[in-house]
Amino acid sequence: LFEERKFLRVLSKQSVSPPPVWLMRQAGRYLPEYRELRTKAGSFWTMAMTPELACEITLQPIRRFGFDAAILFSDILVVPFALGLPVTFVEGEGPRLPAINSVDGLIRDPQAWLEALRPVYDGLAMTRAKLDAQTPLIGFAGAPWTLATYMAAGRGKDEQRAAKLWGYGDPLSFDALLDILVECVAFHLIRQLEAGADAVQIFDSWASGLPAAMFECWVIEPTRRIVEKVRTAHPDAKIIGFPRASTLEGYERYAQATKVDAISIDTAAPIHWAVRTLGGGFALQGNLDPIALIAGGDALLRATDEILDATRGLPFVFNLGHGILPDTPIAHVEQLLTRIRSAR
Amino acid sequence: LFEERKFLRVLSKQSVSPPPVWLMRQAGRYLPEYRELRTKAGSFWTMAMTPELACEITLQPIRRFGFDAAILFSDILVVPFALGLPVTFVEGEGPRLPAINSVDGLIRDPQAWLEALRPVYDGLAMTRAKLDAQTPLIGFAGAPWTLATYMAAGRGKDEQRAAKLWGYGDPLSFDALLDILVECVAFHLIRQLEAGADAVQIFDSWASGLPAAMFECWVIEPTRRIVEKVRTAHPDAKIIGFPRASTLEGYERYAQATKVDAISIDTAAPIHWAVRTLGGGFALQGNLDPIALIAGGDALLRATDEILDATRGLPFVFNLGHGILPDTPIAHVEQLLTRIRSAR
Repeated sequence: LFEERKFLRVLSKQSVSPPPVWLMRQAGRYLPEYRELRTKAGSFWTMAMTPELACEITLQPIRRFGFDAAILFSDILVVPFALGLPVTFVEGEGPRLPAINSVDGLIRDPQAWLEALRPVYDGLAMTRAKLDAQTPLIGFAGAPWTLATYMAAGRGKDEQRAAKLWGYGDPLSFDALLDILVECVAFHLIRQLEAGADAVQIFDSWASGLPAAMFECWVIEPTRRIVEKVRTAHPDAKIIGFPRASTLEGYERYAQATKVDAISIDTAAPIHWAVRTLGGGFALQGNLDPIALIAGGDALLRATDEILDATRGLPFVFNLGHGILPDTPIAHVEQLLTRIRSAR
Repeated sequence: LFEERKFLRVLSKQSVSPPPVWLMRQAGRYLPEYRELRTKAGSFWTMAMTPELACEITLQPIRRFGFDAAILFSDILVVPFALGLPVTFVEGEGPRLPAINSVDGLIRDPQAWLEALRPVYDGLAMTRAKLDAQTPLIGFAGAPWTLATYMAAGRGKDEQRAAKLWGYGDPLSFDALLDILVECVAFHLIRQLEAGADAVQIFDSWASGLPAAMFECWVIEPTRRIVEKVRTAHPDAKIIGFPRASTLEGYERYAQATKVDAISIDTAAPIHWAVRTLGGGFALQGNLDPIALIAGGDALLRATDEILDATRGLPFVFNLGHGILPDTPIAHVEQLLTRIRSAR
């Protein structure tokens, strides 16, 4: 068993060869079995909020590829949903929710959060029960800044603009929003750990493009408080941070200040830089270009080998730099896994 | 005169206090006089390719604000246009051009390029003649990688995907495309300098998100060759590079390898990092958040002061980290200029 759960060993800063591998959005549209289930279920949100469906979708890529970790099929917008904002998914346009410009009316009662989020925890517990014991299950949440961008804009386009205007124009009220999000995200991560998650990942998908001072107070500080709260409840909790497309200085500051166990890096962050700068104190995760996975062939093998070579002997989880894209050929995922699994 | 042309002194690595200031897209939709002229002219492309109109639009922000440099009103897609690809602008959707996946049929004859681009050079010469002598005029071009993203996708959305797939899947043919672009971009910059441009800027707007190895061969190397070609023709040419939203390591490699005179940095690149890493060998330009300029008030003043404080005593051009946005209040631009001009 210990031998098998190599993903968790890496998060404990052990080096494992070949490295464990999972792919962001591995339970998703590139899988025919996912597309088939989605046709029946109707909507993304229905799938995410129906425990049986979320469980089944989470297991699909494990059955097919035997990834070294499963990640719960869910969505970062379950937290705004728990705060009282109804979320809808418009086909081809992404999520919509009511745009807010104050914290008035947001639900702050953890008992209400629990009721709203119970389907997530039920789905997670069901998945943990069905999943083979040697495959760790990852829970996750969006980070406060990224959630704030959706809540301020009411959608996922022009993502940062509305939140930045709120934060620049009314810093006290924006801080109040981040405070509520810190509470609810920490609650959500703790509950997932208690429902059976073996590790959690915090996605700050819109962490790029922020001035350094804003990155500090909108990205790093809320995440630092979340990690602290989760560790207060569960001192051994394994936490991966993904402040996507941060500056390199941003990644470094984030890792040191938040004290996450592992840093997931995007495709542009040079793996050699990550090894040099963060490789000592943190497990690393990343960072294959999802477009190289679509391209396949020599380019994919070269990019894969470069990452494997740079991270040899270090605690490292092979992953993409961003989510797998819907039109990724299954054969290329197989090609990737064969290459990784034959690495020494 | 010498005292007045402080933008050019900064590009010669002199420190000037208060620093010169201009704003990317300063000739644009946030100006009522621009919107009025656009209503009459009909299309963006007509304005860019009609010398009298391009000249008038270039001068508008100089008349209103007295910026320390003018930048020719034009578009990076004039280079694909010269290569034989007709460009159209769909209202609200950005530019469209025929998507290509090979270099077959691209025009490689400099005489034909000259004919296609003559309106740009005529507009530039006209502007230089009308502009007061103490205000430098900046010419510009898109960098090969960014132009390749538009040419491969046929538009400006999903920008990098098609070009990455081309580059990963057929590196020889993609290199041939970059080679042609190097030739035509260098030609275009040289001609602008000969028509009266006092400096040129190379925009690599889609330089973000590239793996380090690809950044090296798709961004840095083509730009290095362009700078070399321009300097062979005009040894004293002043060149600003803007590989937007590169990683910090990317900016550093780019500056050292291409040998541009100045580096323009985006909003997320910490100004303190830029000063520490590049401040010795290169003039710096940037990097106010365009959203802070929309927000105005205390946030704008604080962000402005932070940049002014960090760059005091260094060769620095105050600018935005990205183009000024159409709904930026004129009063906030005035507030910004007052703050910069009162700096000591």
